[in-house]
Amino acid sequence: MVRLSEFSLIAELFAPLAQSDGAFGLTDDAACLPSRPGHDLIVTTDALVEGVHFRNDDPPQAIAQKALRVNLSDLAAKGAEPVGYLLALSLPERVEMDWLHDFARGLALDQKTYGISLMGGDTTSTPGPLTLAITALGYLPDGKMIRRAGARPGDAVYVSGSIGDAGGGLAVLQGEGTLIEAARAHLIQRYRLPAPRLMLGRLLRGVASAALDVSDGLIGDLAHIADVSRVRIEIEAERIPRSAALIALWGEDVVRAATCGDDYEIAFTARPEEQIGKIAERAGVPVSRIGRVTKGAGVALLDAKGREIAVPKGGFTHF
Amino acid sequence: MVRLSEFSLIAELFAPLAQSDGAFGLTDDAACLPSRPGHDLIVTTDALVEGVHFRNDDPPQAIAQKALRVNLSDLAAKGAEPVGYLLALSLPERVEMDWLHDFARGLALDQKTYGISLMGGDTTSTPGPLTLAITALGYLPDGKMIRRAGARPGDAVYVSGSIGDAGGGLAVLQGEGTLIEAARAHLIQRYRLPAPRLMLGRLLRGVASAALDVSDGLIGDLAHIADVSRVRIEIEAERIPRSAALIALWGEDVVRAATCGDDYEIAFTARPEEQIGKIAERAGVPVSRIGRVTKGAGVALLDAKGREIAVPKGGFTHF
Repeated sequence: MVRLSEFSLIAELFAPLAQSDGAFGLTDDAACLPSRPGHDLIVTTDALVEGVHFRNDDPPQAIAQKALRVNLSDLAAKGAEPVGYLLALSLPERVEMDWLHDFARGLALDQKTYGISLMGGDTTSTPGPLTLAITALGYLPDGKMIRRAGARPGDAVYVSGSIGDAGGGLAVLQGEGTLIEAARAHLIQRYRLPAPRLMLGRLLRGVASAALDVSDGLIGDLAHIADVSRVRIEIEAERIPRSAALIALWGEDVVRAATCGDDYEIAFTARPEEQIGKIAERAGVPVSRIGRVTKGAGVALLDAKGREIAVPKGGFTHF
Repeated sequence: MVRLSEFSLIAELFAPLAQSDGAFGLTDDAACLPSRPGHDLIVTTDALVEGVHFRNDDPPQAIAQKALRVNLSDLAAKGAEPVGYLLALSLPERVEMDWLHDFARGLALDQKTYGISLMGGDTTSTPGPLTLAITALGYLPDGKMIRRAGARPGDAVYVSGSIGDAGGGLAVLQGEGTLIEAARAHLIQRYRLPAPRLMLGRLLRGVASAALDVSDGLIGDLAHIADVSRVRIEIEAERIPRSAALIALWGEDVVRAATCGDDYEIAFTARPEEQIGKIAERAGVPVSRIGRVTKGAGVALLDAKGREIAVPKGGFTHF
């Protein structure tokens, strides 16, 4: 276990990250968020486990940033503006203060990037792998949260950025493929540092009928929308956006790209007449139209001739 | 690891716990809390690790309740009224659905007891011990949060309930002592099921100058108040309230009682003229005056003759 005497050092390390008024420099066990009239508070939590969600040789700074960003990505998909986060950290004995310094540096960097503050936390020891849970908080004008349950037949289906890069990055780290360095670096970067699509999410308020962030694989996550919206979603495989680096690694294996997860792009549905192109331009991120919503149930991945492609059932790791 | 096919079963298990409007039955990755005009939102997070915070033979229902209650206890000490919580759960492979059913039943029971709802969550697998992080949310009238940083020289120091029982219960579970069954059961119950002092906390709004919940040991936690309030706290050892069962187990060892932690009582400071007795009566929990705040720094535990008793420096597991 981390030596108990070090917990006060850890406290000193994290206190400067608690910059908002209501965080009280972490001197209290709770933080205080003033109500913002006309706004709802949006809350979400995600846990990351060493060996499951990140590798123990991932740079600590990147682990911190990824943990924060996967939560911000949930807020982004709901259209919310992040304000702060809480961090519950379970540390194994072997973790060194140097590691923690780098980890805190990652948090500090992303706090600046996203304009947020640490609002509270808890550090414990663990005999197991390093585990962290982040709860992110954001504001959204009253009643404007983009749900999963709003997709309607006739809507088009869209996704931001490119799909499969993070899965490709993980495969590369596990020794797969022989890519040129630039492609390799691109995929690993996409695995280690997701880019939450916050501006896109905000611009989709009142435009998207349903949205979520793609964390468990595009097909599996769209199945969540289909399920709670009680519709069928048809995706044209060849329209799924993939980077040149990923195609260099996996060729035409769209199914793998669309099931590997960790993308943290926004998948959403909207009336086809909505001007998604302009929104994408303002958000500074490409958005691809990949399919349509129909009556029925489930998700179908279709080839160029409209035939359904078999997709192995993936895991669902969120409840 | 928990089989991936089971994650959807887990989702079905937890969905009925998401009863508030903004939790959307956990069909979204985020929950929505409407702002309550004139109220601040209070947030706190605590992680619990199997083998550190609970034993792997503790009943799952009690583990769930304890995880929830240690967070509610933080809200109680701030004077807040709980409204909901988020749960991040990392499950080892060996966990059975039966265990999860009992765990969910514990959450359901306490949701009724405390009038709260599950607002969101995340379930992941872990190769390590079962780990859970709960983030609790509560409301409090604007600016009424009871801080740690308000103790002033001349204040009296109080604590609710009795101190050391939970530590005694853990010792009993580890084979210590030969108590009669009723005493044994009392201490184990106090270890497994803390009772967050929510009503007391609410009544202390505007009365207590500083407060916190005792989780890491009375002396160590009072040191936090002394530290951030920049005062000295003197405690009279013989005034520290201890149950008959604990005295049967540990005799006159007050130091052990005051350093063993897991009490989840409220320690607070207030002007001595405040009518704490009436507040305690309304809250239905005994409150003992145990010391005073003076100028200076640190916490001193004093014997009946006013001599300082040496206290081994304890661990601080919260930041």
